[in-house]
Amino acid sequence: MRRTRIKDILGRGQAGGAVLVQGWVKTKRSSGAVSFVHISDGSTLADLQIVVEESSHYFPLVEQLNTGASIAVIGELVESQGKGQKYEIQAKRLELYGTADPETYPLQKKRHTLEFLREIAHLRPRTNTFGAMARMRNAMSVAVHSFFQSQGFLYVQTPIITASDAEGAGSMFRITTLDLDNVPRKDGAVDNSADFFGKPTFLTVSGQLEIETFATSLSNVYTFGPTFRAENSNTSRHLSEFWMIEPEVAFCDLDGLADLAEDFLKYIFAHVLENCAEDLAFFNKYYDKAIISTLENIVSSNFERLTYTEAVHILKASGETFEFPVEWGLDLQSEHERYITETKVGKPVVVTDYPSAIKAFYMRQNDDGQTVRAMDVLVPRIGEIIGGSQREERLDMLAHRMDQTGISAEEYWWYLDLRRYGTVPHAGFGLGFERTVQFVTGVPNIRDVIAFPRTPNNAEF
Amino acid sequence: MRRTRIKDILGRGQAGGAVLVQGWVKTKRSSGAVSFVHISDGSTLADLQIVVEESSHYFPLVEQLNTGASIAVIGELVESQGKGQKYEIQAKRLELYGTADPETYPLQKKRHTLEFLREIAHLRPRTNTFGAMARMRNAMSVAVHSFFQSQGFLYVQTPIITASDAEGAGSMFRITTLDLDNVPRKDGAVDNSADFFGKPTFLTVSGQLEIETFATSLSNVYTFGPTFRAENSNTSRHLSEFWMIEPEVAFCDLDGLADLAEDFLKYIFAHVLENCAEDLAFFNKYYDKAIISTLENIVSSNFERLTYTEAVHILKASGETFEFPVEWGLDLQSEHERYITETKVGKPVVVTDYPSAIKAFYMRQNDDGQTVRAMDVLVPRIGEIIGGSQREERLDMLAHRMDQTGISAEEYWWYLDLRRYGTVPHAGFGLGFERTVQFVTGVPNIRDVIAFPRTPNNAEF
Repeated sequence: MRRTRIKDILGRGQAGGAVLVQGWVKTKRSSGAVSFVHISDGSTLADLQIVVEESSHYFPLVEQLNTGASIAVIGELVESQGKGQKYEIQAKRLELYGTADPETYPLQKKRHTLEFLREIAHLRPRTNTFGAMARMRNAMSVAVHSFFQSQGFLYVQTPIITASDAEGAGSMFRITTLDLDNVPRKDGAVDNSADFFGKPTFLTVSGQLEIETFATSLSNVYTFGPTFRAENSNTSRHLSEFWMIEPEVAFCDLDGLADLAEDFLKYIFAHVLENCAEDLAFFNKYYDKAIISTLENIVSSNFERLTYTEAVHILKASGETFEFPVEWGLDLQSEHERYITETKVGKPVVVTDYPSAIKAFYMRQNDDGQTVRAMDVLVPRIGEIIGGSQREERLDMLAHRMDQTGISAEEYWWYLDLRRYGTVPHAGFGLGFERTVQFVTGVPNIRDVIAFPRTPNNAEF
Repeated sequence: MRRTRIKDILGRGQAGGAVLVQGWVKTKRSSGAVSFVHISDGSTLADLQIVVEESSHYFPLVEQLNTGASIAVIGELVESQGKGQKYEIQAKRLELYGTADPETYPLQKKRHTLEFLREIAHLRPRTNTFGAMARMRNAMSVAVHSFFQSQGFLYVQTPIITASDAEGAGSMFRITTLDLDNVPRKDGAVDNSADFFGKPTFLTVSGQLEIETFATSLSNVYTFGPTFRAENSNTSRHLSEFWMIEPEVAFCDLDGLADLAEDFLKYIFAHVLENCAEDLAFFNKYYDKAIISTLENIVSSNFERLTYTEAVHILKASGETFEFPVEWGLDLQSEHERYITETKVGKPVVVTDYPSAIKAFYMRQNDDGQTVRAMDVLVPRIGEIIGGSQREERLDMLAHRMDQTGISAEEYWWYLDLRRYGTVPHAGFGLGFERTVQFVTGVPNIRDVIAFPRTPNNAEF
């Protein structure tokens, strides 16, 4: 007999027929001559009620069906008399795979703190929150691919190990096979030629530079993979390892990129509203009562567009007291971004044309000589969710800017080659996957939206 | 005017209408008063012919349209008189974005060796082979997701950075933020507590152990991400960084897993046969004339199943001379695997129940005390393509085996917990993505099926 998933059972049009269900016990209670066992199997947030009659041969087994035990049930699918459930199973056969000793099993029926669950991250997918989280991440990952595929983008896996140490996005982890207890030396310095790759290598902070090689040959491409920051940031918004989505589009300027970012975010949010209603309702109820309305608002709004210079004027004219100063030339802080998108505009805002001095070397210079074609997409409740730019496609301008900012033309000869031969206008952005999951679920700490978080002094499991 | 991709143009039912096409020049030739410029844009292997008449205002510009130059063309889509092409564009407007100096541009019209192209991996996506490769990788990645999604599996991103150093699949890269020039010491040894994560950490060799935590709570899950081997293997089949697909299924035994592997491979191969006909035909013509027939055979065959013990009998009775010895207890070598799948059986074979001594600690012990519920899927032309097993779900058996093989129960307390609380029969396998791409394209060196290969002494770009 083939297993039926609880999600498929609950989606049936009518009761009747025998089914095989396999899963883990959430709760159990007895009422007179009947026991009710609720099980889950990961396919949906909802439990399924199993009814075991006292007269059943299997009734004594119920004794062992504590929270966390794993079982198989064969029984008749019938309409449930109980509240809040459509169907239940009248158990005909019961098999116990594994018990869970209530004396030691850490996941009892009560509510556990997220901090506690982090310490047992190997068991937390068994909770409602982390089961729902896994389904949300899955749905959002699928949406990422289906959005780009539907627009003819090619998925490219860019390298994780890189010898480039100047991608300009923060501290990097070194990768090595050298014996740290006895580092080989040559002429007094570390002999990097003895390392696995013959030189120092690092974990990537972005696939952008590499994927530009594909955009400038195959037009529309994106990457979706892990990226890394060796920053000692112990905040609720930072991970040392996180996943990032980076589309890169040839023959595209910043306006086209802003359109793409808007379409992309709306697609992801519409996808979860449509496909994850049950899990979203759970997060909306227990974590943040504004998430569904926020997502619905974004999906139905047209993103506002402002230049950085306009944004600075708005902030200066706001009369607000900010913790950080507002001055043309200084970067916008989270409080500024939130003021603009939440208070001033009330919907997502694309801010463009930032001062070149605070942006990376590869962004396209504007004719004013002061600003670059950068953009940040700001959304209510968190501020910046996407950062991107039109890339500098003019060889001389790029070479000059690299020289100015101390990026080695010798090391990035290949990046310059993309401008030397058949250069094209192109643009791309990056979206941090976990921050987006945080935004969509309302879960306050980013450590709770990824399977096994890596943060300073923490690489458990 | 919106850009139209060449693929969409060639797929049109009829000529007519004005289109905007953007891409890179492949070739150019003149014939009397007309120039023919072939351009590609990555959407398809096929070029599109642009016709520029001598009478055109833009005719002088054609002089600069060397191989590699980037252009935009607006023109009328007309039926082509030329051989091998359905449509062509009668250019009305032409814009040159970037030239490519024929004196220095490395990709001229002639055929280049794969070895040479590896040295200019940033430009090789502009060639037919690597454009086709990018589209094949994309299609196969999509197929991976659509197969598992259609069966209700959840995509889980397992961690890349791990503190576990005993996953049993080979040498690992260390990750560190310690200053190699001045490694901190404590009591004479490296002070690992000063490292970023407070202890030694490595690049993962497999997400299996971590994803088992999700299978034993959410039933059907898979991972698709990068994995790493710090092995000094300079072969055409080894990469230091490659992508792997690892499904893990609860309430599943080895028979169910073999069914899943068979369905999965057939799905991927059927998907590329159906969706990548043009690119597959290219690889079939230039790289391996047997790939299409091999894929078609696999899709329509039922995989044979043999035990390891039966396989050894077959090899011993074969009368063949092998380089490596055949003896019960020794691992099967590639020559043995290929004999079985190619010569003896003539289709894919699932070999099961290997000696426990040559397999990993987490595989389920058979009652014979000699073998484990491991499986390898062998396919013609390469031998093993998938390795997997039913996992040992019995706490005492697993603890005993860990003890035997020197795996620390203290370090893997969480892995044991999965058996301590609500344990279930479960099984999973791993498929190396790049080896599968190699198999499907017939490209002989694995360095040529990934964007930027990482191998010993090589982490360029």
